[in-house]
Amino acid sequence: MHNPFDFDKQTQLRELAAREGQATAQAHPNIAFIKYWGNQDDRLRLPVNPSLSMNLGNLHTLTTVIFDSNLSNDELVINETMTTGAALARVTAHLDLVRQQANLFSAAWVESVGNFPVGSGIASSAAAFAALSVASAAAAGLNLDESSLSRLARRGSGSASRSVPAGYVEWGMGDDENSVARSIAMPEYWDLLDIIVVVNHEHKVVGSSQGHTLAQTSSLQAARVAGAVERFEQCREALLARDLSKLGPIIEEDAVIMHAVMMSSRPPLYYWNSATMTVIQATHEWRNQGLQVYFTIDAGPNVHLICEAQNAESIVVQARQLPGVEAIFLSGPGGAARLVS
Amino acid sequence: MHNPFDFDKQTQLRELAAREGQATAQAHPNIAFIKYWGNQDDRLRLPVNPSLSMNLGNLHTLTTVIFDSNLSNDELVINETMTTGAALARVTAHLDLVRQQANLFSAAWVESVGNFPVGSGIASSAAAFAALSVASAAAAGLNLDESSLSRLARRGSGSASRSVPAGYVEWGMGDDENSVARSIAMPEYWDLLDIIVVVNHEHKVVGSSQGHTLAQTSSLQAARVAGAVERFEQCREALLARDLSKLGPIIEEDAVIMHAVMMSSRPPLYYWNSATMTVIQATHEWRNQGLQVYFTIDAGPNVHLICEAQNAESIVVQARQLPGVEAIFLSGPGGAARLVS
Repeated sequence: MHNPFDFDKQTQLRELAAREGQATAQAHPNIAFIKYWGNQDDRLRLPVNPSLSMNLGNLHTLTTVIFDSNLSNDELVINETMTTGAALARVTAHLDLVRQQANLFSAAWVESVGNFPVGSGIASSAAAFAALSVASAAAAGLNLDESSLSRLARRGSGSASRSVPAGYVEWGMGDDENSVARSIAMPEYWDLLDIIVVVNHEHKVVGSSQGHTLAQTSSLQAARVAGAVERFEQCREALLARDLSKLGPIIEEDAVIMHAVMMSSRPPLYYWNSATMTVIQATHEWRNQGLQVYFTIDAGPNVHLICEAQNAESIVVQARQLPGVEAIFLSGPGGAARLVS
Repeated sequence: MHNPFDFDKQTQLRELAAREGQATAQAHPNIAFIKYWGNQDDRLRLPVNPSLSMNLGNLHTLTTVIFDSNLSNDELVINETMTTGAALARVTAHLDLVRQQANLFSAAWVESVGNFPVGSGIASSAAAFAALSVASAAAAGLNLDESSLSRLARRGSGSASRSVPAGYVEWGMGDDENSVARSIAMPEYWDLLDIIVVVNHEHKVVGSSQGHTLAQTSSLQAARVAGAVERFEQCREALLARDLSKLGPIIEEDAVIMHAVMMSSRPPLYYWNSATMTVIQATHEWRNQGLQVYFTIDAGPNVHLICEAQNAESIVVQARQLPGVEAIFLSGPGGAARLVS
């Protein structure tokens, strides 16, 4: 179950973190109903279209940041593994934004633990950079509001901006100041479920950051962007009306269009595999049989089946039988990124 | 092997057909390298973009047309099965074009036999309407040149226009008079092979004619059409240069973009299945291993692997091992549609 955000407790934790120079934050990954794919500005991660997502309450990343003047360099431990190279460089670049704002010069020890597979189309970087932003800002003694944290998270990973606010979240275009995410409905508003059908949990070959820069090489990207604004509005409306029969076709179309851009990029980028297609076809069959379920697919082969909670059991039972399905995770909407200690 | 077109023999056969009121013609299906998807005029089947294809010499449809004043209605036999309903109505509409031009009022007996599965993404209607056009025109006593036959075939099935000329064929946009196909290279020009990987030979649920009218409901169709002209030119150039490393990426991109339009139509149209995706992935892997092979996919789940003849054996051996592969057909470039008796 989702725990509501307790402002008083967060204030206490933030004050404690500022005194101790260390903090631990939790954030959920999110599943995009309207996708983010391509930037107006790659460095600032300013998106070319608005996007809309649901935080995934059952999945989370816990990140601890300890600023320590005895360290000569930032150190990063992900899921109990000391990590260097590109992942560490990206975390250091993110910490530099915080250090700069806080006038802080210490290196940091960062430890991150997730309860779901990393880099497999479940937005692990979204949860990771949302948690890192909340923890590092607090540990650095900064008092940032939700918008500022969302903006900070965006700089680490675009979709991380959406993992900062609670529940159902929109992230608009704009400049560095105002391209931030905000809740459009709390988790309690609609009892949707995401049935995450994992068909392949190997780490993907091309990460999303690289993919975003490829997007502009597809002859379909301009059409995707032009249509995304309309899909975003329709999706938002369907969500606020809690109308899955309206929401579903839009999220399927939006997902397919993002993958069309990927597959028509130069060079092309294929995230779908045979099991992805099996689950897509099964979704169509289940719907023909009267089950209200729709798919969406992030930058990976896994398929996210979106349904209302009362239909989940029947879908899970059938999805387990499909060839190529390795694991299934379930999640309802989740809360905001927050300090936990 | 491909038999060259013998003008003298065709003239003899045409004169004989005119006297007897009956003729038999043969035509090959074709595989499009640049796809036809969507019409400017659905009735006249005037395409929204130029397309380019290769006739498939090892596959053919043989169609006999006998005008018989004793018949009260047209009769149609396809692969030894008496056929009525929509298929017969479409043949009658096509014969009406011929009868009108020839001032003929007899009904016809039409028998068509193909050596490949119908309606499964191998362009059966292309071969069928090309053969029907050549046979019925001759049986009606019309003396039509290749362009006129291509134009007539186009009215029955757009891609049938491309099965009339020999070898590698382009079909341009235009009006009813000048939107006809013509050869850009004879079969001998380049020894390409199409390895047709049949993953599902069931008749498809939505036929191409219906699909063409859906195309305009996709938000990607305008971008597909805009990009098709450039891809057409690049494909034509690569073909004339016999450069598979240039041709291949273009035909893969064009195929993916057509299927993206299909999958983003309203309602969406999915022709790919899990085995389609398996073959796409295998193609990428074979290429990584140094095999020059590229895929294209028509309006069905089957995958056409395009390679030069010397690489075919290795690809066929490996393709047979893939899960979901039901049959494999091989074909080099084929000749023009022609009278055979």
